[in-house]
Amino acid sequence: MTEHLKVKVDAGVMEITWNRPDKKNALSNDMYRGAAEALEKASADPSIRVALLTSEGDSFTAGNDLSVFAAASSGGEAPQGNRYITAIAKFDKPLVAGVRGVAVGVGTTMLLHCDLVYVATDAKLSVPFVNLALVPEAASSMLLPARVGHARAFAMFALGEPITGAHALELGIANAALPAGEVIQAARDGARKLAQRPLGSLMATKKLMRNPEAMLAQIQTEGAIFAERLRTAEAAEAFTAFRERRPPDFSKV
Amino acid sequence: MTEHLKVKVDAGVMEITWNRPDKKNALSNDMYRGAAEALEKASADPSIRVALLTSEGDSFTAGNDLSVFAAASSGGEAPQGNRYITAIAKFDKPLVAGVRGVAVGVGTTMLLHCDLVYVATDAKLSVPFVNLALVPEAASSMLLPARVGHARAFAMFALGEPITGAHALELGIANAALPAGEVIQAARDGARKLAQRPLGSLMATKKLMRNPEAMLAQIQTEGAIFAERLRTAEAAEAFTAFRERRPPDFSKV
Amino acid sequence: MTEHLKVKVDAGVMEITWNRPDKKNALSNDMYRGAAEALEKASADPSIRVALLTSEGDSFTAGNDLSVFAAASSGGEAPQGNRYITAIAKFDKPLVAGVRGVAVGVGTTMLLHCDLVYVATDAKLSVPFVNLALVPEAASSMLLPARVGHARAFAMFALGEPITGAHALELGIANAALPAGEVIQAARDGARKLAQRPLGSLMATKKLMRNPEAMLAQIQTEGAIFAERLRTAEAAEAFTAFRERRPPDFSKV
Repeated sequence: MTEHLKVKVDAGVMEITWNRPDKKNALSNDMYRGAAEALEKASADPSIRVALLTSEGDSFTAGNDLSVFAAASSGGEAPQGNRYITAIAKFDKPLVAGVRGVAVGVGTTMLLHCDLVYVATDAKLSVPFVNLALVPEAASSMLLPARVGHARAFAMFALGEPITGAHALELGIANAALPAGEVIQAARDGARKLAQRPLGSLMATKKLMRNPEAMLAQIQTEGAIFAERLRTAEAAEAFTAFRERRPPDFSKV
Repeated sequence: MTEHLKVKVDAGVMEITWNRPDKKNALSNDMYRGAAEALEKASADPSIRVALLTSEGDSFTAGNDLSVFAAASSGGEAPQGNRYITAIAKFDKPLVAGVRGVAVGVGTTMLLHCDLVYVATDAKLSVPFVNLALVPEAASSMLLPARVGHARAFAMFALGEPITGAHALELGIANAALPAGEVIQAARDGARKLAQRPLGSLMATKKLMRNPEAMLAQIQTEGAIFAERLRTAEAAEAFTAFRERRPPDFSKV
Repeated sequence: MTEHLKVKVDAGVMEITWNRPDKKNALSNDMYRGAAEALEKASADPSIRVALLTSEGDSFTAGNDLSVFAAASSGGEAPQGNRYITAIAKFDKPLVAGVRGVAVGVGTTMLLHCDLVYVATDAKLSVPFVNLALVPEAASSMLLPARVGHARAFAMFALGEPITGAHALELGIANAALPAGEVIQAARDGARKLAQRPLGSLMATKKLMRNPEAMLAQIQTEGAIFAERLRTAEAAEAFTAFRERRPPDFSKV
């Protein structure tokens, strides 16, 4: 288990905490794998009734650590993001999140799989996959338009501009928007409240409300296109520009 | 026909009124059956152009009368709630509702099948199926997330907390929120306005907008799980605690 | 090409402008066909990255020119509205709209196919198909309930009342609501911003977000019912009343 992830269980709630605050909790393969394993354990263990996603430091997560792509492209370990996303899409018990600061890319798309979401009013949620010439993942190309409508979802994807936690509440992405200092406690209170409710009823309700098969199919479709796009001239220009700290120029690619 | 239901027709509008105000219009098998039969009649009668659901007294309805379950479990009549819900899901003419006070359980889920919904600003809509260790019904496990998004729907189901009529308007569950004293008249005016419009066009429009087959399939799926859950230790604890007027303890079941 | 449509290309953006301001940009067969051909060209031409729909004069469009129906019923050219709607549903590059004044019928339903929508705060969007005893088109019977919920969509269709641009923003039909004098420039700025982003990524993202097959199937279903309804006594009464400038009376048809 990596030091960049903390997992503890208290009163039926498994709290999974991104713990790499010096890197804004950018998600490494170890963190993805650890979180996926924790969720699988939470699902299998009858004493665990609720899972809770939180973070150390100012940020929820800056998203995928770019080292993951670097490792994969140099013959290293395959990215584990999909394993985590699959675990979250399949997770059959209540899943709660507490989000402060930035939630970039998968940091926002994972919230679409959560059952209760508490955000800081000034949190910044963004899905800037197009900035890197990529495409949405985690079934967000299906879930975000369904949640907020096509036009708003397209703007979030295509322009990459963040929305605040306050706006996420209005759009139904979050259940509550609070001062940043109160978010984690509110999320813990929400998780604990769920842990005191009848688990069988909650699980049956969640199952009736969701269609994990459709989500997993969309994740697969997105993943194939994501992989193709990593090899495009557009993506090469985006990554080069990012490394060279200049704006990308897509006019000729 | 039970005295707890009033049905009258005026100017092409059939008004179906829950009339058991001393029990907050808790729905008995007679009321369910009467309302289902009225809707079936309204569908078949070409002189009826619109159906309108209203109530006597302070409440829309406190939901399912618990005597329905009691009767069924002691070998009496099977619950008629499903017959009513099926009738409402199949109803092919415009359906309007006027809601004051509490709308508990089926009182709220039936609104998801209505075409125009007028609520009191201070109405209280709730779907607390999990409080009784049960699951959502009336296709609400599909319709409510589609209407308000997964996170808000999960909170409504799992925590059982009511939302106000004003909030229901913001969420698109209602078309208008008004002072309680004006709701029934506004709903009647809306129904009458629809009755003056071309019925064939309204029916064809409603048919294009909805998917009753998907709703009826979901109602059946929910019903099977609902029946299973009535026999669980969780439900036994919930009903016992309710009778004993103590908070339920689900930690050991 | 008709003078009632302007098409120009600048910096990767094809701007398609309804140009029949003296008729509130009512859409004729020539305008429908011209816009469909322009979109087909924009899709095929790699130098065009974004299409933008705008209008001359005070109105976006008053909708279908009633002369289209008249021509069809007297053995003239078949209505070309479906060709345009099909082109817009199939369009695979980003599509932006700038809307001032009235957007009636297809003027509003086409917005549901756009990716970014800029509206005037005081714009008036309406889908009054039932006023003419017809049914929704352009897959709006599917897209509008999905966007704003069944109850709000039913009210818009059945009562035919317009919503303002400000309300369209709240409902997620639009991305921004601005003073009328700023709308076209804002839409152009949005289109130009998209034109500078990676086109392959935008197209792949749009493709993942939408289901054109389902839209085209719904357009076909709606079209068959629309054609049937044109031949009903209700529609005859609606059109006669319209010509005679009196309120229609549907009570006997």
